[in-house]
Amino acid sequence: MPNIYVALVHYPVVNKTGDIIASAVTNLDLHDISRAARTYGVKGFYVATRLIDQIELTKRIVKHWTSGAGADYNPSRSSALELIRIKKSLEDVVSHIGEQESVWPKTIATCARKFDTAISYEKMRAMISNGKPHLLLFGTAWGLAEETIRQADYILEPVTGHTAYNHLSVRSAASIILDRLVGR
Amino acid sequence: MPNIYVALVHYPVVNKTGDIIASAVTNLDLHDISRAARTYGVKGFYVATRLIDQIELTKRIVKHWTSGAGADYNPSRSSALELIRIKKSLEDVVSHIGEQESVWPKTIATCARKFDTAISYEKMRAMISNGKPHLLLFGTAWGLAEETIRQADYILEPVTGHTAYNHLSVRSAASIILDRLVGR
Repeated sequence: MPNIYVALVHYPVVNKTGDIIASAVTNLDLHDISRAARTYGVKGFYVATRLIDQIELTKRIVKHWTSGAGADYNPSRSSALELIRIKKSLEDVVSHIGEQESVWPKTIATCARKFDTAISYEKMRAMISNGKPHLLLFGTAWGLAEETIRQADYILEPVTGHTAYNHLSVRSAASIILDRLVGR
Repeated sequence: MPNIYVALVHYPVVNKTGDIIASAVTNLDLHDISRAARTYGVKGFYVATRLIDQIELTKRIVKHWTSGAGADYNPSRSSALELIRIKKSLEDVVSHIGEQESVWPKTIATCARKFDTAISYEKMRAMISNGKPHLLLFGTAWGLAEETIRQADYILEPVTGHTAYNHLSVRSAASIILDRLVGR
């Protein structure tokens, strides 16, 4: 089993014009990414947001599906959303994993743009297989802030298909990247 | 380029208890799957629903993003949602592709359950490379009706990760399956 964590970052991310913003939490991000995380054996799915109302919203959604009416209605959804941990910043996410693992996780930034230092899926898959904790970072809105990407230990190459089109949803990108890095 | 089409089926699909139902259209299914389809060079993304109000809703969403205010706001979203074709039944989808291609497409059913006759991704990827039209079928709600699966030309093996958990969203499953079958 890979020792992998996922963080969905809501700050700092960029908007359409490149300004740094704090984005809103999207309900289906929580569902889709937690279900993919559960499928691929991810140890924790962190939702990073510093907005108080968004923290409360996320708590309410998670509670509904893990201990509320949703848990009875759909137990498989419950076992996915149980992976969600809410933290106020990426630093708090890294600290939390560090405490659990007794070693800091290596961070892996994802981005639709290609960086010169980007690492291939094949290489990253091999690196992850060392059993040490790795944290995959996904940006909401128009993606992670450039500074956050550059501060990560590694940058993953973008997901590309047969075309030059590179506008996957974060839900699709996270699913494909987990399949490529830690799929069978 | 692969000669591939995608259909998102809203009838006949099953609900939680296995009854055959017509499901409602989910806005983010249209966005996420059309963006993945566009990324992987899919030639058409068919939304199959026989419910009049759902047909109207789908038309309105597509119109907003392809010729309405959404098209100006986000041109890349427009070029994805342009792939959407709305049909009343799976038979209409197959006919429409048949007319365009002058040959019936081979249909490939997807399902979270494993069938004895299921084909591996590696084998299906090789089969698709023959350049003939293939139509991938995705079920909404709790998945395609068993009869629809059995009537398809091929059944694809389920997407599995490191765990026994097999409850991906249709958005995640479609993204991963396109990446596995027609990714670079």
